[in-house]
Amino acid sequence: MIKKKHMMDLAAFGGKPEFNKPLSVGQFNSPDKEIFRAAFDDIFDRKYYTNHGKLAQQFESELEDYLGVKHAISITNGTLALIIAAKALGIKGKVITPSFTSVATYQSLYWADIEIVFCDVDPLTHMITPELVEPLIDDEVVAILAVQLWGEVCDIDGLQALAHKHNLTLYFDSCHAFGSSHENKFIGNFGALEVFSFHETKILNTVEGGAICTNDDKIAGIIRNIRSSYGAGHFVDVPFTGNGRFSEAQAAFGLMSFKNLKENISRNKKHHLLYEKYLSGINGLKLIKANLGNGNFQYIIIEIHKDQFGLSKEQLRKILHEENILVQRHFYPEAHKIVFFNPLIKEKTSHYPVTEMLNNSIIQLPSGSNVDEDKIERICEVIKFLHDNANHIEKELSI
Amino acid sequence: MIKKKHMMDLAAFGGKPEFNKPLSVGQFNSPDKEIFRAAFDDIFDRKYYTNHGKLAQQFESELEDYLGVKHAISITNGTLALIIAAKALGIKGKVITPSFTSVATYQSLYWADIEIVFCDVDPLTHMITPELVEPLIDDEVVAILAVQLWGEVCDIDGLQALAHKHNLTLYFDSCHAFGSSHENKFIGNFGALEVFSFHETKILNTVEGGAICTNDDKIAGIIRNIRSSYGAGHFVDVPFTGNGRFSEAQAAFGLMSFKNLKENISRNKKHHLLYEKYLSGINGLKLIKANLGNGNFQYIIIEIHKDQFGLSKEQLRKILHEENILVQRHFYPEAHKIVFFNPLIKEKTSHYPVTEMLNNSIIQLPSGSNVDEDKIERICEVIKFLHDNANHIEKELSI
Repeated sequence: MIKKKHMMDLAAFGGKPEFNKPLSVGQFNSPDKEIFRAAFDDIFDRKYYTNHGKLAQQFESELEDYLGVKHAISITNGTLALIIAAKALGIKGKVITPSFTSVATYQSLYWADIEIVFCDVDPLTHMITPELVEPLIDDEVVAILAVQLWGEVCDIDGLQALAHKHNLTLYFDSCHAFGSSHENKFIGNFGALEVFSFHETKILNTVEGGAICTNDDKIAGIIRNIRSSYGAGHFVDVPFTGNGRFSEAQAAFGLMSFKNLKENISRNKKHHLLYEKYLSGINGLKLIKANLGNGNFQYIIIEIHKDQFGLSKEQLRKILHEENILVQRHFYPEAHKIVFFNPLIKEKTSHYPVTEMLNNSIIQLPSGSNVDEDKIERICEVIKFLHDNANHIEKELSI
Repeated sequence: MIKKKHMMDLAAFGGKPEFNKPLSVGQFNSPDKEIFRAAFDDIFDRKYYTNHGKLAQQFESELEDYLGVKHAISITNGTLALIIAAKALGIKGKVITPSFTSVATYQSLYWADIEIVFCDVDPLTHMITPELVEPLIDDEVVAILAVQLWGEVCDIDGLQALAHKHNLTLYFDSCHAFGSSHENKFIGNFGALEVFSFHETKILNTVEGGAICTNDDKIAGIIRNIRSSYGAGHFVDVPFTGNGRFSEAQAAFGLMSFKNLKENISRNKKHHLLYEKYLSGINGLKLIKANLGNGNFQYIIIEIHKDQFGLSKEQLRKILHEENILVQRHFYPEAHKIVFFNPLIKEKTSHYPVTEMLNNSIIQLPSGSNVDEDKIERICEVIKFLHDNANHIEKELSI
C-alpha cells in the first residue's frame, strides 16, 4: 500500500487510482467453479431447465426450513415479487411507504395502480416508525408497505400494533434483510407477507431472483396462481396471472449460495467491525451501526456531512469512483422527486426533510466477496486523506 | 414398433404405453453440453452474471442483424415483454385482441389496466382478420394487439391498412413466430413493435426469455427505460420502470440456440411434412397447413371433429396422454371464459363461435428435438388406430 501524501496522488488530479480494478459495493457471493459445474451438468443431464423443477422446489423447501416460514415462493426477481405481492393482497386504496427507499418499492405500487403516500423516515434508523406513519392514515389508506433497510429491522411490533389499530394490511419489502431476525424469528415471518431479493448484490445470490414469504395459506395460493402463466389452482379467484417463473439455473445458484450463507454473514459482520475501527474519529462521517434486531450486516452505510467532513457526499463519491472505489449513493432516483410525474402523488406528502438529508449524505462502501481487511483499510485511508485535505481539495474541484 | 391391434393394447385400458418416457410437444432445442460448458465457464471466469452484460448485448446485436430490425430489446420473459410493450405504447383506451390466443396475450393488457375487446378468429388461419376487427372499432378503441399464431403470419397488410384508416396503434404478439417472414421481411419489423418469446418450448431457446423488436427509436428508448429498475435515459418521460433484465445465462443459451436456428427450422418443416404424410385421409382430422407467408413450422396443430373422427378432442387428448404422448390443448384457459371475472370485459363481446369450435377441437402434436421420423410414425399410427376403433373405444371410456 502506497499512502497518498499529496493531492496530486489522487486519481481525480492525475494520480494512480488506489485500486487497479473497479471495486463494487455489492455482495457478489458466487459459488466455486467446480461446484457450479457439477450443478449445471446435472441440469443438462436431466434436461429440465425451468417450470418449477426439482431444484426450484428444493430451493423453496430450504428457504422454508431455514426461515421457519410456511410458504417461500420463488419469483423471477425482487421487483416482480413486489409487484405480484401488491396484486396478491388485492389492495384497493392508498398505501403508506417510505420516501427513503429503493425504486423497486414504490414502482411496485405504481405497477399495481395503487396510490402512494410517502412517509418520511427516522434519522437514526432511516426507516419509518409508527409515530411518523400514524398522522398520514386517513379513510382511504388501506395498507403499509414497510421496508427493512440495510439488512436491519424496522419497528415491526410498533407498526403491527398500528396496523391492527387502524385495520390496515402490513407487509414488508425485506429485499435487504435475508437472514436478519427479530425476537428470535427470522425476517420473512412478519406481516401479511415479506418480499426478498436474491439479486447478485444481495447476501443470498441467485444472480437475478427473489421470493415472497408468508404464513398465510390463502395469500400463498393467490401468489402461486399469479406466478404461473396458467394459474396453479382455481382460476376463478385470481383473474391475474403472469410469468414469475424461477429457472433451474437460478435455483442451482441459490442452493449453492445458501451453503455459504452463514460464512458470508460472518464476513459481513467482520467487515462492518473493520470499517468501524478504521473510520472512527472522522468528523462529519457517521457509520450506520446495527441498532435493532439481528441484521445480516450486508450494507456498509456512511452519512457524510459537509459542514464537518469538508467535502459533500457527491464530491466524495466522485473522487472515490476515480480511485476505482465504486461507492454507491442511495437512493437514486429519489422517490419523492421522480414520482411527481405520477398524478397519484398528492401535494400533502411533498415534504420529507430527513429523506432529503439522507439523499444528500448517504454513501454505501464496498463489502462482500470483493474486499478483505487490507482493501478495507486502504479504502478508509483514502477517505481519511480526503477529510484531512478537504479544504485544499475542494478548491480544486469543479464538482 | 409393436402395432396396437386390440383395444386392450391401449394404455388407457391397461396396455403398455406406446412410449416409455413422456414425449412433450415443445421445441426444447438445447445446446450440446460441451458448447454449453465453454460458454458458462466464460461467464464464471469473467464473474459477470447479469445487468446487461457482454453476452446480453451480443445476443441483442445478433437478433438485430438477423431480423434486420433497428432495436431488439431482450426481456426476462415473453409475458413481461408483452406487459412492458403495452406500458411502453402508453395505451389509454380499449384494445382489440383475438379471443383465441395464449393467456399471456390478454393478461398483458389486463396487467396494463387496459380494457380488452375480444375478436373472434378466422376458421382457416385461426387468426383475426380486418373484416372481423372492423365492426368492433368504436371511439374508445385505440389499438390492435394481433397475434402471429402457430409460427404463421396473420394478414399484416390488411390489419395495417385498417389501423391506418382508423388511426389505431397496431402491434403484434409474435411469440410463436421467430424466424417467420412476410414479403421477404422477417417478423419483428411490423407494426409499432413485435414481441417474441424464447421460452424453451419455442424455436429460439433462452430457457426463459423474450424480446421486443421495433424500428421506432422513441418506443425503443421508452422500453429500455422501463426494462431497467433505474431507467436507462431520461426518467422524466417514463415514470414506470421495472426489472426485465436478461441474465448472461439466458443470453449464452440464446446465442448457442441461435447457431442451430436454421437447422431447427428445417427439422420442424420435415416433421410437418411427415405428419402431413402419415395423417392424410383420416376423417374428421385436419392438419393445419402453413398457408400464409413463410412460417417456422414450429407448431403441429390438428383439429379433431368428433362427428367424423369418432372421438372428441378431449377424449383423444386423454388417451394419448396415457400413451405418454403429451399432446396439448389450446388455448387453456379459454380467454373469453376466464376473463368474465374481469369487470373490464363487456357483454357485447361474449359470442365467439369460431373460438369455441377451435377450443373444442385443437390439439398440438409433438415436434422439436424430442421426436424423429420413427416416433412421428408411431404417434400417427396410434391416432389412426383410435380413429379406426373409435366407436368401440368410446363405449368403454368414462370421459
